[in-house]
Amino acid sequence: MAPGLSASPPAVLLLLSLLGLAAAGKLLVVPADGSHWLSMRELLNMLQQKGHEVVVVAPEVTLHIKPSKNFVMKMYPVPYTQEDLKKQFQAFFHFSFEQGSFLERFVKAYHGIKRITYLGVSSCGHLLQNKELIRYLEESKFDAVLTDPVLLCGAILAKHLSLPSVYFLRGIPCGLDFDATQCPRPPSYVPRGFTQFTDHMTFFQRVKNLLHDIPDIFLCDFAFEPYSKLASEFLQQDVAVQDLLRQASVWLMRSDFVLEYPRPLMPNIIPIGGVNCAHKELPQEFEAMVNASGEHGIVVFSLGSMVSEIPMKKAMEIAEGLGAVPQTVLWRYTGKAPPNLPKNVKLVKWLPQNDLLAHPKTRAFITHGGSHGVYEGICNAVPMVLMPLFGDQMDNAKRVESRGAGLTLNILEMTSTDISNALKAVINDKKYKENIQRLSDLHLDRPIHPLDLAVHWVEFVMRHKGAPHLRPAAHDLNWVQYHSLDVIAFLAAVTLLFLFISFKCCLCCCCRCCCKKGRTGKATKAKSH
Amino acid sequence: MAPGLSASPPAVLLLLSLLGLAAAGKLLVVPADGSHWLSMRELLNMLQQKGHEVVVVAPEVTLHIKPSKNFVMKMYPVPYTQEDLKKQFQAFFHFSFEQGSFLERFVKAYHGIKRITYLGVSSCGHLLQNKELIRYLEESKFDAVLTDPVLLCGAILAKHLSLPSVYFLRGIPCGLDFDATQCPRPPSYVPRGFTQFTDHMTFFQRVKNLLHDIPDIFLCDFAFEPYSKLASEFLQQDVAVQDLLRQASVWLMRSDFVLEYPRPLMPNIIPIGGVNCAHKELPQEFEAMVNASGEHGIVVFSLGSMVSEIPMKKAMEIAEGLGAVPQTVLWRYTGKAPPNLPKNVKLVKWLPQNDLLAHPKTRAFITHGGSHGVYEGICNAVPMVLMPLFGDQMDNAKRVESRGAGLTLNILEMTSTDISNALKAVINDKKYKENIQRLSDLHLDRPIHPLDLAVHWVEFVMRHKGAPHLRPAAHDLNWVQYHSLDVIAFLAAVTLLFLFISFKCCLCCCCRCCCKKGRTGKATKAKSH
Repeated sequence: MAPGLSASPPAVLLLLSLLGLAAAGKLLVVPADGSHWLSMRELLNMLQQKGHEVVVVAPEVTLHIKPSKNFVMKMYPVPYTQEDLKKQFQAFFHFSFEQGSFLERFVKAYHGIKRITYLGVSSCGHLLQNKELIRYLEESKFDAVLTDPVLLCGAILAKHLSLPSVYFLRGIPCGLDFDATQCPRPPSYVPRGFTQFTDHMTFFQRVKNLLHDIPDIFLCDFAFEPYSKLASEFLQQDVAVQDLLRQASVWLMRSDFVLEYPRPLMPNIIPIGGVNCAHKELPQEFEAMVNASGEHGIVVFSLGSMVSEIPMKKAMEIAEGLGAVPQTVLWRYTGKAPPNLPKNVKLVKWLPQNDLLAHPKTRAFITHGGSHGVYEGICNAVPMVLMPLFGDQMDNAKRVESRGAGLTLNILEMTSTDISNALKAVINDKKYKENIQRLSDLHLDRPIHPLDLAVHWVEFVMRHKGAPHLRPAAHDLNWVQYHSLDVIAFLAAVTLLFLFISFKCCLCCCCRCCCKKGRTGKATKAKSH
Repeated sequence: MAPGLSASPPAVLLLLSLLGLAAAGKLLVVPADGSHWLSMRELLNMLQQKGHEVVVVAPEVTLHIKPSKNFVMKMYPVPYTQEDLKKQFQAFFHFSFEQGSFLERFVKAYHGIKRITYLGVSSCGHLLQNKELIRYLEESKFDAVLTDPVLLCGAILAKHLSLPSVYFLRGIPCGLDFDATQCPRPPSYVPRGFTQFTDHMTFFQRVKNLLHDIPDIFLCDFAFEPYSKLASEFLQQDVAVQDLLRQASVWLMRSDFVLEYPRPLMPNIIPIGGVNCAHKELPQEFEAMVNASGEHGIVVFSLGSMVSEIPMKKAMEIAEGLGAVPQTVLWRYTGKAPPNLPKNVKLVKWLPQNDLLAHPKTRAFITHGGSHGVYEGICNAVPMVLMPLFGDQMDNAKRVESRGAGLTLNILEMTSTDISNALKAVINDKKYKENIQRLSDLHLDRPIHPLDLAVHWVEFVMRHKGAPHLRPAAHDLNWVQYHSLDVIAFLAAVTLLFLFISFKCCLCCCCRCCCKKGRTGKATKAKSH
């Protein structure tokens, strides 16, 4: 055998690929804005480099989605302004810093998400009504749709254009992704989202975890049902949310089992956690800052691209806490600088987070626990102090903490001492570095980089017009059939019938015996007389 | 970004690997004999080429396991001869050609498997009693064990040596592999082994599929329980079959969803179907035979490496059937040549099956439906005529047939006309070639060759002393907890208690109301008097 050659793709394909002659495709991309866009953009850049034509459809008003030389950008007008958009997001993120009872905070979060959802739905409605753009899409002969299903507009377009789709996502709340992929998730060891449970639960945690499925059935309706209405109107047929979700050929999930708890997967779920960890060169100014930090090194601090400002009182508390460590802290912050900013803290409007984390002088990472940041922390083996704000960040923080690779602080209750203590602990207590190093080693030891894997599966769906061989037959069963309830009912009925007939037969036999005995007894008695 | 570099393993590792300097490990291999060995051998060759020291432990008497320059072979004496071994296997395979009622055939199969199991258990017992060899293994400081868990001797050694293990397998009967990996398999769409159902079942097939789990609970005991006894004696502790199976870090499953029906997988189950499809060069004599076949091309015919002879009557029927097609048939057969052998049929003692199937002149493949052969048929896009004999071969044949890529014949009932008709159909009806080509295209379009994937995961387990991050917490739950039956019982009790108290309260209120009314009524009555 010549394994070097044999165990690789056919030589002809390899040659074509190297020459850039492998069949190039045309991909329609309907992204979600915000941090979701950032890792998807990396994938689009790779796809463009492989010779594919990438067309991104996005509203004219966005937070992060901007035109690029790497793809064709098709923008459509929406009835809100950049100011409206920023205001809604700022209001939403601001509530993370507000004290209040659970109910108050829940209601605020609900209204915040509802307002942001409204913007998404409004944007989608304007896209679907934009006849010129829709005609262009219909005439463009795409091979597939790549979309983030946290907004269902891409799924509606895929259905309208009869195109296979690839979903690129972190997850969908309320277990909608599990339902849509028909992926089992036993409540006994698969913790539900937003519970902050690990995979090892106490009895009462398991009770709560199971009960968590009940509100899930309708809790996300307010965020997803409007798309069902839009789709039904646009496609002129009844379309449920699950109809839109289930059509995906492949689900590229930004998760990895060094962070997630091991659980079943379906064959068309491809974990690509760490897809965002590709390195660029560190800009000179940052290299200089890091080198100037001396033997103590640096701490990287960012609450994510979506949080621009935090309340001044909180900012001052944080500044005080950061002042108590000998490390230089690079803090990405666009708000007003707190007046007590210590000398060792440098405020920057933007920082190359992943490349800074990769620097050997980086000692710790203070993060809000967004999945991108957490995976960058893992890729670069930097222990974390987590200050989760909303969404899946509490769960991410819990996962890092349960692995002994970081410490979580409650952003509302933490004091400056808590911050400095946590920071000192993750920097000075060796176990945090050892644990994150172990996770990092496991995470990076993979047969193929997650970005290459994502490219492969998008190309696969483009080449084969889907991935029907990965679609489980469970999609063709209703809920009763899937859970074999009809079979169980049938078997129970047969068993009961059998028992009933057996009982009746026994009764009959006993009766006959008794009667016979009775008669014989009587006869004997009569005879004896 | 510089994706070419960034999206690849760290440059240093790559360099070390290219220079052959990456940390080499020491692997203990405990293989299963027969066709199982053939694909595992390919993996061992690759591991040796990557610089690892491979030690294979096998009995002195084997069918296919032979020493090689690529690994150290440690053989141990067993109390049976080569003749005994061959006789038992021949007797077992011979029964496939014998007519009889279902019960007769079942009993024969049971006794056949029991006799073969006895040989395996006897061999394992002699290995464990071989103090010198065990001492050598204890002192050898292996990094991991690679074994085929269809025989549990490797698993016992892994437990004794406290080594992480990788299982390399097609599957284990009676769903033992699903239980051991805690992999869900809803009976509504995951057909059980030996049922020949597809993933789309009728109601009564679903009933049968669900009921199939009941005999499975104890049906395989006779083949696996003896290992539990051996392990308990050797390890001086109670060891159940599932204790041995569950310790595996990674399960390399020789399956792929172009053949298997899509179903849930656990993170430590790595599908490597097609691992045996690496090509070598076709030997000159076979190249000459193929070229001499003219425009009609050839048919490759083999009933597998384990079947050496078939009854003469059956052989003559087959020969007659093969004579009716214009193709040259290369028939791998070691038995006595049938006297009616047609001119177009060439009997050979051995044939390079995969490389012949890869030849563009190959029109069809007649196979017993063993998983190796079926995957070779898929890799090379050759339509198949399947003559399943035993084990998973009936299921494999059904899978190929349900994909429209081949036709199945009943080896007991088929006539020479059936054979020639089936052969003509798969060769001349274009749909068979189109379907197998589609399966082949999907199967070969993968980000990494299954052999490289298998090598990666063996090395991963060697490097990290296991893969604990892929072990689901389900292993730490008992059956009641896993299915949340305790939680459901608790919730039901709470609900009933709540209803009971509510009912009692209502009753109490009603009573009081009635009493009051009664008293008021009486008082009114009394007053009115």
